[in-house]
Amino acid sequence: MPVSSFQPPVRTLMGPGPADVHPRILSALARPTIGHLDPAFVAMMDELKQLLRDAFRTRNALTMPISAPGSAGMETCFVNLVEPGDKVVVCINGVFGGRMKENVIRAGGTPVCVEDAWGDAVDPDKLDETLKLHPDAKLVAFVHAETSTGVASDVPTLVDIAHRHDCLTIVDAVTSLGGSPLEVDAWGADAVYAGSQKCLSCTPGLAPLTMNERALEKVRARQEPVRSWFLDLNLVLGYWSGSGKRAYHHTAPVNALYALHESLVMLHEEGIEQAWARHRRNHLALKAGLEALGLELMVKEADRLPQLNAVTIPGGIDDALLRKQLLDLYGLEIGAGLGPLAGRIWRIGLMGYSSRAQNVLLCIGALGTALKALGAGGDTGEALSRAQSVLSEV
Amino acid sequence: MPVSSFQPPVRTLMGPGPADVHPRILSALARPTIGHLDPAFVAMMDELKQLLRDAFRTRNALTMPISAPGSAGMETCFVNLVEPGDKVVVCINGVFGGRMKENVIRAGGTPVCVEDAWGDAVDPDKLDETLKLHPDAKLVAFVHAETSTGVASDVPTLVDIAHRHDCLTIVDAVTSLGGSPLEVDAWGADAVYAGSQKCLSCTPGLAPLTMNERALEKVRARQEPVRSWFLDLNLVLGYWSGSGKRAYHHTAPVNALYALHESLVMLHEEGIEQAWARHRRNHLALKAGLEALGLELMVKEADRLPQLNAVTIPGGIDDALLRKQLLDLYGLEIGAGLGPLAGRIWRIGLMGYSSRAQNVLLCIGALGTALKALGAGGDTGEALSRAQSVLSEV
Repeated sequence: MPVSSFQPPVRTLMGPGPADVHPRILSALARPTIGHLDPAFVAMMDELKQLLRDAFRTRNALTMPISAPGSAGMETCFVNLVEPGDKVVVCINGVFGGRMKENVIRAGGTPVCVEDAWGDAVDPDKLDETLKLHPDAKLVAFVHAETSTGVASDVPTLVDIAHRHDCLTIVDAVTSLGGSPLEVDAWGADAVYAGSQKCLSCTPGLAPLTMNERALEKVRARQEPVRSWFLDLNLVLGYWSGSGKRAYHHTAPVNALYALHESLVMLHEEGIEQAWARHRRNHLALKAGLEALGLELMVKEADRLPQLNAVTIPGGIDDALLRKQLLDLYGLEIGAGLGPLAGRIWRIGLMGYSSRAQNVLLCIGALGTALKALGAGGDTGEALSRAQSVLSEV
Repeated sequence: MPVSSFQPPVRTLMGPGPADVHPRILSALARPTIGHLDPAFVAMMDELKQLLRDAFRTRNALTMPISAPGSAGMETCFVNLVEPGDKVVVCINGVFGGRMKENVIRAGGTPVCVEDAWGDAVDPDKLDETLKLHPDAKLVAFVHAETSTGVASDVPTLVDIAHRHDCLTIVDAVTSLGGSPLEVDAWGADAVYAGSQKCLSCTPGLAPLTMNERALEKVRARQEPVRSWFLDLNLVLGYWSGSGKRAYHHTAPVNALYALHESLVMLHEEGIEQAWARHRRNHLALKAGLEALGLELMVKEADRLPQLNAVTIPGGIDDALLRKQLLDLYGLEIGAGLGPLAGRIWRIGLMGYSSRAQNVLLCIGALGTALKALGAGGDTGEALSRAQSVLSEV
């Protein structure tokens, strides 16, 4: 085997994640490694926790990144909050709700599922009905922004229903954090996890997490030890806790944390409300262009995520071939559909640093040109002008 | 809170890890992020698996990095191989053996401990006796290179004993991989995990792992699902498996994998036996210098790890103060003792890129000078000369 350094091609990442990583963040990643107990590193960790609190809009003391990808953030919530025998209501309207159900089973709990179609938001009435039938349920789990479908669910309403039935809530905010309004404290969400590689535009590999006191009380009151040593918050907190000496738990991914810190500094500089507005503006511009090309968004308007656009693939278009063309000709990555939506939708991400005017135009231009070559689509020039009109509105 | 980019101080990392990261590896880390299903990335993954096989000296098909730190590598072995009720013999001669015991409990198994003093190697006779008393044991777990004490245990002998008693073996090679001889296939070790941040000199955050077919059969034959979704090898393999379409499991830490690939390319270029010899040479040079300063290595010669040197702290020396001086004056990090060895030893790492002649001299010069200021130690000039003599022998 000939062996040489890997030189990745330069892509524009407009799939479901990872999103494009800002050069400032890549540069932070490459700064010199220091020890995970170095006083300079520990001071950075404290600042990072505060920046994460600002991004989650919470004052929760327990706010920190888990040293593994978003999926491990999900597992941290379930493995700590679910005790064997606990009944957990899981709302499923896409891939990640299904994964939550698996997590409940692995943690020894009993899942009760509330199912909605892939492409629809979680139905609050169904959740309420289910909780009435299961008064012994301890937890309710759902996804804020379903990455598999581009659907936003109504977090404050779902949290209120759960709380009325004395349930704690676990909320997946992997794709929402930094891209669309998320108000952990104002909405009362109890345990919320996210990922570094979506709207924060950091590299993949870390899972920001926050839990309020009520959730943490359930963790502390467990009868059985947490089924994971690595993700046991009782231990992880010894390293991340704010006061005094840090207890060694595992070797923190030092450079990845530099990068997450830098991405949060950039979010702080932009302002989180401005970041939400930017994601919304670019989404509306993309939508205007796609519609001018005759393409349709699958999700109904009220439930659409600005950062992830599910586009119905027109009849007669070879999904895989078209995505391969975009990648080969323009280095442009858009996402495929998953599960029942495979071959039926494209997932076009406008997340973090990928949510930029030039990416909106590139995507419309590339899709328009590729469709035209197949005798489909519409007037690409007109589509670009419509997108530009939206971008020009302030 | 004033918020700005984090600029880490430049350190020389001679503690128990992370070790210094080579500039080539930091540079690889900062290359443009691409998608985790990008054909270019998938080709890199295949090369990375082969390079890892070479480093582990194995032909195991299941050889890949887990997307989380070494501690998660440990958990991957236990959570997959231990079924509830399984009896597991755990050899404990330091922190990481103790952690293995915790992992057995979390996975629902019953640990049986073979204890040796911190600073001694695992005693093969004790293991044999214990297995005679527990003929129903399914697994034997031990640490090859105890990072908390600097002790190497005799892997092939321990594996042979385990196999004679029909047990599979789990071996912690976090600190050994790349630094001292490790022969996974020749020694018959069944499941072996490591970390990226020690003798591979990559950034912390990934856990290389290898398992032979016999171990994998036990995973496949499980009656109960693995207690972790994130670390369930049945699922992880769907993404990392060599053939056909990769199933989405989690978003791989793309840039961290660039860095691991680069570190393995560098190991390939050097040659693994040459890397082992380098670690040994620098260890002998450090030893010569430390002994000239009147310092003693805690571990007896036959069991010493070249990459991690446990040095007995002379009476009357303030451990924390001296380490702080080295950090403040020279940016030099050496490690503290853990558990019963806190305040009694320093742990001086010569791992990966940190295992260099200039680091040997820096450490001897800095320690000699600091001790002299306290009226302790020996002739620093002489100590440096003795180290240089060893470095000059080829």
